[in-house]
Amino acid sequence: MVIDKSNMRQVLTDFPQQCREGMGLAKGVTVKGQFNNILVCGMGGSAIAGDLLKMYVTDKPVYVVKDYRIPDFVDQHTLVFAVSYSGNTEETLSTLVEAKNRGAKVVGITTGGQLADLADTLIKVPAGLQPRNAVGYLFFPIIGILYNSGIIEVKNNDLNEMLKVVGDINYFDEKGKELAMKIKDKTAIIYSSATLGACAYRFKCEINENAKSPAFFHVFPEMCHNEIVGFEGMERSKFVILLVRNRSDHERIKKRMEVCKDLFEERVDVEEMTSLGDSLLAKMFSIIYLGDWTSYHLAMWKRIDPTPVHVIENLKRALG
Amino acid sequence: MVIDKSNMRQVLTDFPQQCREGMGLAKGVTVKGQFNNILVCGMGGSAIAGDLLKMYVTDKPVYVVKDYRIPDFVDQHTLVFAVSYSGNTEETLSTLVEAKNRGAKVVGITTGGQLADLADTLIKVPAGLQPRNAVGYLFFPIIGILYNSGIIEVKNNDLNEMLKVVGDINYFDEKGKELAMKIKDKTAIIYSSATLGACAYRFKCEINENAKSPAFFHVFPEMCHNEIVGFEGMERSKFVILLVRNRSDHERIKKRMEVCKDLFEERVDVEEMTSLGDSLLAKMFSIIYLGDWTSYHLAMWKRIDPTPVHVIENLKRALG
Repeated sequence: MVIDKSNMRQVLTDFPQQCREGMGLAKGVTVKGQFNNILVCGMGGSAIAGDLLKMYVTDKPVYVVKDYRIPDFVDQHTLVFAVSYSGNTEETLSTLVEAKNRGAKVVGITTGGQLADLADTLIKVPAGLQPRNAVGYLFFPIIGILYNSGIIEVKNNDLNEMLKVVGDINYFDEKGKELAMKIKDKTAIIYSSATLGACAYRFKCEINENAKSPAFFHVFPEMCHNEIVGFEGMERSKFVILLVRNRSDHERIKKRMEVCKDLFEERVDVEEMTSLGDSLLAKMFSIIYLGDWTSYHLAMWKRIDPTPVHVIENLKRALG
Repeated sequence: MVIDKSNMRQVLTDFPQQCREGMGLAKGVTVKGQFNNILVCGMGGSAIAGDLLKMYVTDKPVYVVKDYRIPDFVDQHTLVFAVSYSGNTEETLSTLVEAKNRGAKVVGITTGGQLADLADTLIKVPAGLQPRNAVGYLFFPIIGILYNSGIIEVKNNDLNEMLKVVGDINYFDEKGKELAMKIKDKTAIIYSSATLGACAYRFKCEINENAKSPAFFHVFPEMCHNEIVGFEGMERSKFVILLVRNRSDHERIKKRMEVCKDLFEERVDVEEMTSLGDSLLAKMFSIIYLGDWTSYHLAMWKRIDPTPVHVIENLKRALG
């Protein structure tokens, strides 16, 4: 029996190519204005583009809103990106309308829907994927526009390195399978430094959506100040820790991870992975891509079709 | 045998009085300057003051940093609060030094330590508590200074209502015990709307630290786009949901909670609580205070002394 009916394996295999295409989608597109800050509105698999932007761009204030309402400070000097793969996500449309009422210019990144009609500037991305599988289409146009508009710098080398790193598909396939076989029926908790926090969150969400399994995340050093105390009540049979190492982490965070690993292992098993590449972009996408493959293999092991998310569809129907 | 050796029950009972005192700590203290944004640096039980500020103040951009480094955009036009109950939290001191090097003015909120020596403006708070039990001392001076400096508005009625709401100590004691008896050996997952997200996070952390038990959190509507799919793999014996209702939530979030509750209950038990009062401040602190009592009673049921956090102490020692 075929489990992966919609062939997510192929979608994952195509992902490096999607990133390459994503980088081209904003070609020639610019925004004009004096912006004090950047707001990205979106939900779930579309919002991750905003989370990644917030990690990647640190010399401009970036806000990510995953809600119906935007903060009161948003005005014409806020550059707003509304990201919704379907273009019909109700929360994102609600924030878009609020942002426009405040005089902000809104860049829409979508396959179509109402968002395509309402956005001041539109980046239209290829349809046919699950939103969570389209992060290359949804993220790279944002940095493309910011770069074209002189708002941020992006090194060509970083883009090329990122493509090279995720291009080693076999590595991610195999390492993902290895990690999945350590998770199996346990609940995975993913820990990274705050520097890669959005990737840890994405990893957790991919386990939720692809393997239909609970999973959680937190970041160093904050988890050392609260969550770690909960390990006194952890049981080896229930949880497994996935620890994301990163060569550019602050030295004290590296040390914290060393010490905490020993502490974790008194209670639960710990599996490790390391972000790849030199640039932040490569590191970010190496963990994202590994999470995609890990959750895919976990779904295969559980004999669950990774692509459909019936719960979300049922919820949308019930919401009317 | 006395379990609550350091008498956390008394500390919790004194909390409304602490909030009242906290409101007075910033009396006459102001900051001068033109600020584009506000940055709060801190970790764990001290950082929650920043998380609460970000929820409470929406007409100014508020950033919370729980890390060693601050974002590159921070400069002399950023108003920085460094919050550390001990005054010696290494991450907070690291961010403080970085902020000063960028020309920012730093307000320190602490009992002493190096932070007291390094801050440009100092709010000294009473010592002798666990940092997580001092949120009244750590939060209210921040809004006091912002109010005194004409940066935000705070309604006196809101402060009074908040004090009145948390003043009904018996309610929180009893409701907290009731919730704790529903959690027992299960792993609690706390869900609120994003509007009260910091309170859900705080609730989770209090279970970690007081009851030495794992606990997790997420917020509506974002959890409807990923985490909810994980419920297909949830087991009733392992998890319990604590759902935070809030009368001012967006109507669509209320509807989402209704629908999700039914979905949750197919897999796990759901316990509910409702934020109290009319003002956001009262609502925030009603959930915080309920989390404190719930985690206290969970510790009692587990026969664990809620106050000491040996894991964190051991970790600090191992880090040298």
